[in-house]
Amino acid sequence: MRSHYCGQLETSLVNETITLCGWVNKRRDLGGLIFIDMRDRTGLVQVVFDPDQAALFDTANSLRQEFCIQLTGVVRARPDSQVNATMATGAVEVMATELTILNRSAPLPIDFNQHVSEEQRLRFRYLDLRRPNMNHNLQFRARVTAAVRRFMDSAGFLDIETPMLTRATPEGARDYLVPSRTHKGKFFALPQSPQLFKQLLMMSGFDRYYQIVKCFRDEDLRADRQPEFTQIDIETSFMSAEQVMEVTERMVQNLFREMLEVDLGAFPQMTWHEAMRRFGSDKPDLRNPLELVDVADLLTDVEFKVFSGPANDPKGRVAALKVPGQAESISRKNIDEYTQFVGIYGAKGLAWMKINDRAAGRDGVQSPVLKFIPDAALEGILERTDANTGDIIFFGADSATVVAEAMGALRLKLGQDCGLVSDEWKPLWVIDFPMFEEHDGQLYAIHHPFTSPVNTTAEELKANPTTALSNAYDMVLNGVEVGGGSVRIHDSEMQQAVFEILGISKAEAQEKFGFLLEALKYGTPPHAGLAFGLDRLVMLMVGASSIRDVIAFPKTTTAACVLTDAPGLANADALQELSIAVSLKETE
Amino acid sequence: MRSHYCGQLETSLVNETITLCGWVNKRRDLGGLIFIDMRDRTGLVQVVFDPDQAALFDTANSLRQEFCIQLTGVVRARPDSQVNATMATGAVEVMATELTILNRSAPLPIDFNQHVSEEQRLRFRYLDLRRPNMNHNLQFRARVTAAVRRFMDSAGFLDIETPMLTRATPEGARDYLVPSRTHKGKFFALPQSPQLFKQLLMMSGFDRYYQIVKCFRDEDLRADRQPEFTQIDIETSFMSAEQVMEVTERMVQNLFREMLEVDLGAFPQMTWHEAMRRFGSDKPDLRNPLELVDVADLLTDVEFKVFSGPANDPKGRVAALKVPGQAESISRKNIDEYTQFVGIYGAKGLAWMKINDRAAGRDGVQSPVLKFIPDAALEGILERTDANTGDIIFFGADSATVVAEAMGALRLKLGQDCGLVSDEWKPLWVIDFPMFEEHDGQLYAIHHPFTSPVNTTAEELKANPTTALSNAYDMVLNGVEVGGGSVRIHDSEMQQAVFEILGISKAEAQEKFGFLLEALKYGTPPHAGLAFGLDRLVMLMVGASSIRDVIAFPKTTTAACVLTDAPGLANADALQELSIAVSLKETE
Repeated sequence: MRSHYCGQLETSLVNETITLCGWVNKRRDLGGLIFIDMRDRTGLVQVVFDPDQAALFDTANSLRQEFCIQLTGVVRARPDSQVNATMATGAVEVMATELTILNRSAPLPIDFNQHVSEEQRLRFRYLDLRRPNMNHNLQFRARVTAAVRRFMDSAGFLDIETPMLTRATPEGARDYLVPSRTHKGKFFALPQSPQLFKQLLMMSGFDRYYQIVKCFRDEDLRADRQPEFTQIDIETSFMSAEQVMEVTERMVQNLFREMLEVDLGAFPQMTWHEAMRRFGSDKPDLRNPLELVDVADLLTDVEFKVFSGPANDPKGRVAALKVPGQAESISRKNIDEYTQFVGIYGAKGLAWMKINDRAAGRDGVQSPVLKFIPDAALEGILERTDANTGDIIFFGADSATVVAEAMGALRLKLGQDCGLVSDEWKPLWVIDFPMFEEHDGQLYAIHHPFTSPVNTTAEELKANPTTALSNAYDMVLNGVEVGGGSVRIHDSEMQQAVFEILGISKAEAQEKFGFLLEALKYGTPPHAGLAFGLDRLVMLMVGASSIRDVIAFPKTTTAACVLTDAPGLANADALQELSIAVSLKETE
Repeated sequence: MRSHYCGQLETSLVNETITLCGWVNKRRDLGGLIFIDMRDRTGLVQVVFDPDQAALFDTANSLRQEFCIQLTGVVRARPDSQVNATMATGAVEVMATELTILNRSAPLPIDFNQHVSEEQRLRFRYLDLRRPNMNHNLQFRARVTAAVRRFMDSAGFLDIETPMLTRATPEGARDYLVPSRTHKGKFFALPQSPQLFKQLLMMSGFDRYYQIVKCFRDEDLRADRQPEFTQIDIETSFMSAEQVMEVTERMVQNLFREMLEVDLGAFPQMTWHEAMRRFGSDKPDLRNPLELVDVADLLTDVEFKVFSGPANDPKGRVAALKVPGQAESISRKNIDEYTQFVGIYGAKGLAWMKINDRAAGRDGVQSPVLKFIPDAALEGILERTDANTGDIIFFGADSATVVAEAMGALRLKLGQDCGLVSDEWKPLWVIDFPMFEEHDGQLYAIHHPFTSPVNTTAEELKANPTTALSNAYDMVLNGVEVGGGSVRIHDSEMQQAVFEILGISKAEAQEKFGFLLEALKYGTPPHAGLAFGLDRLVMLMVGASSIRDVIAFPKTTTAACVLTDAPGLANADALQELSIAVSLKETE
């Protein structure tokens, strides 16, 4: 029905007769002529209707916004004075010769030139998606997945589908459950990831696997979470952590080169401990030049307990964060706001120092805590932070966890507020994570319980679990964790040891993961993998502020679809057939 | 960890030192040497261990079936007398120089050299998938999806993901339901297909969409059904039925050329009426040369009511099915079995005629119904079926539906039993389906309620729904429907008319499909699409007998996963949080 797309028209086609299909983006009547901007997925082009062709002009006169039309006409160059440099096709226009209205449009229920709420955008998503930037986001995403697949296919990875209806586990509090009709009273769960299945595929000898796959997590939604999200899921056999990082780094480098003409360069690697020490985060945003500087050793002997307490506590930390040249621009009011801000992360206060004259020593420093800090400690701090006149230094002193979270967050906020974040791409690998973290005396796996520790035996791991490092790696880009993975345990003794450390009894391990422990007996290959969050990766690449802007039909923040009105009520007979009943309390 | 895959070794590598990773497929001790067949996903190669290298030989001596090993050695040509022509790498072997046991294997719980039940295969799926033919099936499938994607990407189709958590509709008896945590008492449904979302994507202006996507149907499983299955889902704007058929036909042609080096040629098109008339099926297997021949007009006046009844009934049918040259080989006992067989499809009997001597006229025909058939009718039948000496003719006389089903099935069975099915690929398009079919006075959509009728207005359709043809098309390959699609309704008046004909009230249509009817108002483009069943297509291509053999982790015929033991019991707290309760009766 068309010979060209709107966005393809250019001066080389002048005098050619072409046919387009698309929508009336805008109509203007001017000087007795009718002009429309016609739109399809490739862009816009201007079409002109001349009143000399009476029947055609009559039809054109009935055109309204979003009418769907088929249009034939002759491409002509616009006079120099009328070239529209802001439009890709602005050097040409189409002189209409034939027009068919394929479908009319009622006046739109929303005006995208005004502010439109996200609720309205989602309710009329099919109109929202017609907008060029949203249309571009989804087209970009399609090109990203195509590029990822081309790379993975050519690197010998096999796209193998894993099940969506999987085993519900009693501890899967965040599983979406699916009642079974055949096995009454039992439930499937939608997968939070294909983790165990991709490990089973390695045990099956497929060697290299990938899948771009939907995963599900039933939890409170934040700006960058959706109940269903998409992973680029990867698993390999006979490859080390370094080799997995190498091939996936190359994949992301290729993607940025192909899609954005950006050379990401080689990704630096940083240990988890270094990341926490310098940036207070396991996903540091390296576009932000601010860094935490540890100063506890300078403050062990001060009388000021706020500093000396954490400085002498093996689990405590005292860190300084210097913001260069901002002593004057950051007001007392700003400091109060920052103090409130770090309070969100558990910090009980926020000490600070303005360096009004570095040459003047103690006299040149302005700070509410100055009187508590002896000369030697002060000079030590100023030297170690390389403080200069005009700088301001903030201090975090608390448990290492609170300092990392509060000062890490403050670092990001100050970077934004002071305009210090560079306009670059800053990828890195974070490696050497601890195997476990402790909450209330219980150990939890930082990655997941199938992650292999670095260089240790099952016995050694059980003896010293808290100091063990895991063979895991996260890919971080501009402060966002875009991917994470690990070498997996391929030995049933080690797997049992990890279950034991996590407080999973033998009987429980057998009940939940018996099939995995069984499978590990039969010559399981060493294997390792990684998963990327596709939504977040595309969001970063297109510069969107929410993953909802790179998903065709996302759910709202209350996990609903306002377009189709899902979730909905179920048929009573269907529920009965599934042997389940809704058990709402009267008040609900 | 490897320099080559096992299957890559060939005579050009002789004298090279290579490293392999894989499994011990088989071990043989012979003449003081140890031989193993080493396996990875590419195939097998023979490895030899020489006792001269004592330490290496010692390690090799501990090798058992399915040990996972890394092996270094030198490739050497086998002596001519020892070349194994049945093995792709049979011209070479590897003289081992280093061996690392990466993981041991316990003795396998099943012996694949014996008969293994499907239950056992699924329980130890990771072992089952190591078998070369299963490993090949899944690798083949991965190459099929990669080829499909390459084709679709290069044809300008955008891969866009549609939601898995969709709207539950009260009539969706076969929906899998997912209780919502946030919206208590409400449910999502897993999609039976992305039909409405892909139509919304066309309304959003994406122009060409495809997705390889999981779909769900909670129904009794047959040999070729799974609760979750995979579709190649396609939708286009501004394209006619012919154009959709053209591009998807080209896709399948390319696939067969690329994967199987098979030229499918141009696909013939056949109307639904012709397919039912000649083959008694809307998915005729054209590899089978047998055809139904209508003979009702010859039998309207016979006294034999079994024939004359249907012959005179406008909804009746009398059809002959001639099997050439099988009069002698098909015994009375066979005929009794065929009579039982057609009974399954509702036929009340099976009349037959053996042509023992065509030249002898009535005297040369042997048949229990011969006495009921006058000379003229008999001669008419013999002429019209082109019967010759040695042929046997079967007759179906009943309602057109029963005749088509029973004689269509008998045609397939006779084709198999008599070895008449050719070893070819026989694709075709079936077109011009009726819009509706009638059961018990109620009309049902043959495709789905969004299918556009051919050349008719909403008014005309409402006046004569039963004679209307739909703008739908099915792709059939060797008697299997591999894909089906249609031009969609893009006009809300027509959509409402179809809902009305299907007995869906205005209020009900509004409640269920209000968003679609609303969306149709705003310049919806003409659009059309198609969906292929990927599992079935791959099953045909690899020659598997069940789709379970081309799915990595299929469910059993009772919709369970015996490997992970899914579905399982859910946590009581989780159910409470979802506000649902299991309502099993005491007896269950």
